[in-house]
Amino acid sequence: MGQVFAVIMAGGRGERLWPLSTPSRPKQFLPLLSGKSFLQATAERVTSLVGKDALFVVVPQEYKELVAQELSLPREQILVEPEGRNTAPALGLAGLILFARDPKAVMITLPSDHLVTKTEEFQKVLGVAVEVAQKGEHLVTLGIKPDRPATGYGYIRYAELFAEVQGLPVYQVERFVEKPDRAKAEAFLEEGCYLWNSGIFVWRVDTFMHGLSQHMPELYAGLLELREHWGKPSWEEALARVYSRLPAISIDYGLMEKAQNVLVIPADIGWSDVGDWSAMASLFPQDESGNAVCAKHVGIDTENCVIYAENPGRLVATLGLRDLIIVETKEALLILRRDRAQEVRKILERLRKLS
Amino acid sequence: MGQVFAVIMAGGRGERLWPLSTPSRPKQFLPLLSGKSFLQATAERVTSLVGKDALFVVVPQEYKELVAQELSLPREQILVEPEGRNTAPALGLAGLILFARDPKAVMITLPSDHLVTKTEEFQKVLGVAVEVAQKGEHLVTLGIKPDRPATGYGYIRYAELFAEVQGLPVYQVERFVEKPDRAKAEAFLEEGCYLWNSGIFVWRVDTFMHGLSQHMPELYAGLLELREHWGKPSWEEALARVYSRLPAISIDYGLMEKAQNVLVIPADIGWSDVGDWSAMASLFPQDESGNAVCAKHVGIDTENCVIYAENPGRLVATLGLRDLIIVETKEALLILRRDRAQEVRKILERLRKLS
Repeated sequence: MGQVFAVIMAGGRGERLWPLSTPSRPKQFLPLLSGKSFLQATAERVTSLVGKDALFVVVPQEYKELVAQELSLPREQILVEPEGRNTAPALGLAGLILFARDPKAVMITLPSDHLVTKTEEFQKVLGVAVEVAQKGEHLVTLGIKPDRPATGYGYIRYAELFAEVQGLPVYQVERFVEKPDRAKAEAFLEEGCYLWNSGIFVWRVDTFMHGLSQHMPELYAGLLELREHWGKPSWEEALARVYSRLPAISIDYGLMEKAQNVLVIPADIGWSDVGDWSAMASLFPQDESGNAVCAKHVGIDTENCVIYAENPGRLVATLGLRDLIIVETKEALLILRRDRAQEVRKILERLRKLS
Repeated sequence: MGQVFAVIMAGGRGERLWPLSTPSRPKQFLPLLSGKSFLQATAERVTSLVGKDALFVVVPQEYKELVAQELSLPREQILVEPEGRNTAPALGLAGLILFARDPKAVMITLPSDHLVTKTEEFQKVLGVAVEVAQKGEHLVTLGIKPDRPATGYGYIRYAELFAEVQGLPVYQVERFVEKPDRAKAEAFLEEGCYLWNSGIFVWRVDTFMHGLSQHMPELYAGLLELREHWGKPSWEEALARVYSRLPAISIDYGLMEKAQNVLVIPADIGWSDVGDWSAMASLFPQDESGNAVCAKHVGIDTENCVIYAENPGRLVATLGLRDLIIVETKEALLILRRDRAQEVRKILERLRKLS
């Protein structure tokens, strides 16, 4: 039985949490209420399962130092992307390097900036995923049971039961669905055989590489080319050259949506991608008027607002407000309607145009 | 003909402009776009008429130094209130001291924190007021022609024409009206013989003191008692003792509303009391979406908002907002609905309870 490795992808930019998340300190490096960053919490959750020696982080050059500091990880366990090209090349790179160690190794891959509150459940369901993946036949993913018709997540429609392992059902995946609109999301919820795509995948490295060879031949060819340079002085130069030609697409789109051998395990692990300020607010203390507040807040007739100040002693006074998000950091003051939390990126686009 | 003096009342707290206006630096000391403070601009406007030697400022102890710095005024022209007791005692004190110089002196009294954009018009109408007041028969006031049914100002209903002086009509006052509700204010505008109470009064000192003796006997008695100590070593002690007993009411309520010998001159002087953030906003540059902005603002779907940052280079990003006031200073971040701008004081009351 091959070793189990964990590969954390730490290249996200967390733009929807601007201005707290910024290019120089994106979401995965922000502290949670525990004081640990998203990345540290993710690493802890998974290393207790695989051991610290088996932890790899794929990260763009600019965050390499941050990762090294936060995780005190040996340099060889930090895989640096020469440039950000989405998750398929990043995971291909990790797959290549693990394949060189042991083709039958199991690789758990997960985003660095999600929240999981039920650690024990998480470790249990991940254990099941590893057990299933170890057979080398399937790409396995964790699916989150939806509790609302969210439009910010991708969905997975599952088909018949494939197996029951340690009391947990493992389903065959019928298809992956891109982020739906509200009506579709509601229909999914009603239908009942849909799960949210958690972005947590488990596979044997050879199964993964085989999948790439089938569905992403261009990426696979690039990886084969790179393989010749692994462990040689020519590696850095080859990586930079080859990587820039790899298709910049997500592993979901490039592989998971196309592969026929995908299994999903419903996971009740207290998961959130904390993908926008409205989601972030669920981590804040709530007051009696439904406001989620991280600040010294004096509110009159203020309901269902999210109020965050980088300096927690900062005085924020509000009057006559409803359903707003208010965020104050050194970088900027942001105020927007709560139902438009997903549109923060539009502001960043505008800012890029201005600068 | 007696000398003309100007008495500026600089005791306001400007609470409705919090958090820009604070107890340690209230509105009258804030800079206008010209760079001069409200107080400096007021002083300039009136000293060009009466001369700097004839300028007095009545101010609470805590702002004495600020006034001295801003106006480089000799100490004897700064009259210090031992405690804030509204405008009647403050003006009584000024009246007493000017009376000792010359009972037939004319006293112009005006708030320190209003805006007047038409300086020439202001000086002309004030000249007329002085000319009328010099006869010693009337208390004269400037009334602002209303251009909207404002509910934040007191109104003056005028009766028949008393005289025309230098081409300007001077009316007899029928009555002063406290801040009306919206319906009343609209009725006033329709009726057409109403003016806003500017808080600018002109009278001969003896006429004023006579008015106090008639309508505010308690205040008048206190002033008579104080008079014995004027210019003597016992002054400070006597002032502190007597002042604390004087009725803490406004000159409008104590004298102007009761006196029968009040005249009003309609004044088209570009006046505003800049009494809340919505009024303050009229001094800011307007963008094409009707936002009044003093900040580096990036707005998406943002209309009719007031956006002020103490640091003008501060980035403020907004999305999906309408009719809000957003104010960021070192003291606090304030966000409220524009139609509730008058209620900022409620926040301060809440803060006082908390501290």
